[in-house]
Amino acid sequence: MSVLISGSIALDHVKTPHDEHENLLGGSASYAAIAASFFSPVNLVGIVGHDFPQPHIDLFKSRSVDLGGVEFSDGATFRWSGEYFTDMNTRETLDVALNVLEAWQPVIPEAFKSSRVVLLANAHPENQHAVLDQVGDAPLFTIADTMDLWITIARDRLLALLKRVDLLVINDSEAKQLMDTTNLIAAGRRLCEMGPTYVIIKKGEHGALLFGPHRFFASPAYPLHQVYDPTGAGDSFVGSIAGYLCGLGKDTFAFDDLANAVARGTIIAGYTCESFSTHRLEKLSPDEFETRLGEFRDFTRFA
Amino acid sequence: MSVLISGSIALDHVKTPHDEHENLLGGSASYAAIAASFFSPVNLVGIVGHDFPQPHIDLFKSRSVDLGGVEFSDGATFRWSGEYFTDMNTRETLDVALNVLEAWQPVIPEAFKSSRVVLLANAHPENQHAVLDQVGDAPLFTIADTMDLWITIARDRLLALLKRVDLLVINDSEAKQLMDTTNLIAAGRRLCEMGPTYVIIKKGEHGALLFGPHRFFASPAYPLHQVYDPTGAGDSFVGSIAGYLCGLGKDTFAFDDLANAVARGTIIAGYTCESFSTHRLEKLSPDEFETRLGEFRDFTRFA
Repeated sequence: MSVLISGSIALDHVKTPHDEHENLLGGSASYAAIAASFFSPVNLVGIVGHDFPQPHIDLFKSRSVDLGGVEFSDGATFRWSGEYFTDMNTRETLDVALNVLEAWQPVIPEAFKSSRVVLLANAHPENQHAVLDQVGDAPLFTIADTMDLWITIARDRLLALLKRVDLLVINDSEAKQLMDTTNLIAAGRRLCEMGPTYVIIKKGEHGALLFGPHRFFASPAYPLHQVYDPTGAGDSFVGSIAGYLCGLGKDTFAFDDLANAVARGTIIAGYTCESFSTHRLEKLSPDEFETRLGEFRDFTRFA
Repeated sequence: MSVLISGSIALDHVKTPHDEHENLLGGSASYAAIAASFFSPVNLVGIVGHDFPQPHIDLFKSRSVDLGGVEFSDGATFRWSGEYFTDMNTRETLDVALNVLEAWQPVIPEAFKSSRVVLLANAHPENQHAVLDQVGDAPLFTIADTMDLWITIARDRLLALLKRVDLLVINDSEAKQLMDTTNLIAAGRRLCEMGPTYVIIKKGEHGALLFGPHRFFASPAYPLHQVYDPTGAGDSFVGSIAGYLCGLGKDTFAFDDLANAVARGTIIAGYTCESFSTHRLEKLSPDEFETRLGEFRDFTRFA
């Protein structure tokens, strides 16, 4: 009853107008795994280098994240460095060092191949295909996240991936770019026609849209009057969705399950923005989560 | 039991990538009045010139819009001309001729002074103050809309207006501009501290946020896969809110009434975008409206 999460594990250097931190736990799979661990045990697939700090490893282990699919390499861990400006909505990537990620070939342990839900967190589409090749038809539900870089340099492989997953998660500008339209609703519907049964378009501070067969769901973001570091908000959003679905313990998922998952992901993504890296998530209690989920229901209800 | 709506009545010339029309019924008060008329009789306050087409007058009359507060001047009607580009989210104002609007001093007929709800649709803050001066303490609830131009050229008078109204409706970029912050949640809360009990921030395709005493509500936009002409969407949104509240026939309004009003305004604003001017609203049936409102509930529900 575990969720398999593959993707990048990084050491981040993040600068905001208020603060700056180095060697932070980062990467799509790291955020997704910590988020998913609120709802389900996690089987993590990725690669780190000799410089990966022990406290990050201890954090994963403390949250029932099985590292059996993480390759510990002699090289250096993937590093990302970025800066946010006054409005926290624009960021600049200052430096990217792929390091061990460059030649990485994901290898799925046998014990991981029975994972019920598989999340292909943001990574090169070739790596995402490689994971699907190894798990075969075993998973109940497969999810892929992506980013603008892959639309630009690996469009055909990304389009091929869409035919192999049940849910695509993509942000608003990427959805418009991939479907060549300026209308998000049209983009979501067209993406559904490209293969996935469900499509979620992430809109940051404006929430998310879920498209499915003859159904639609729109969620606002959780209202935050101050954002400390939005890095990983999208990754923890999709990680929560994968973990929540897996934790339901169902044999099939209905549209309403997906909508409920989006609401959970929205709450977790909001918490992610309240501190650097996964720091706020690490301290998040089930009671705090449930309280905010209840508030969120209230924030969106009308008669 | 009527809603008083004051503001501009215009003749618009609108160009989109698909089509172009002249002498369209436009202006903040026109859109707001047609929208409000779905929910309540309307007392309209504005000014038109000798060139104002009879069919537009007939339209108002057919929708229980009382024109007793509309001055029919010998001059030329206020004219606005604008063009939308491919993405329908950016527009350029090509020409503005204030004409009769330039020297207009709103005069509220005695019979209008007992209107239960007053909407000061987008206009110069001096005109909005002038309406409030004449209605005094009679209205149950007062609402003001505004635009970036007034923040720039009449900021002090706009800030003074905030202390006199129950609800401010403002769009996202204007809210950030007026409160000098890049965080919309912070902007909404600060605007509430400037005077109004309630603040609604309009976000176009991303919906709207409602702030009130210790309460918050977020609504997505109604999903449209094609936008034909978004002119007046914001005006019809706020007109619907005013009309809906008035139509409730209550002596006081609670936060939930405001949230329900936002949902109605969202539906009407969506219909406004489906054709030029108020053309789609003119053909909108109560059944169509209720069907879409029901869909909208479904689009935003989670467990």
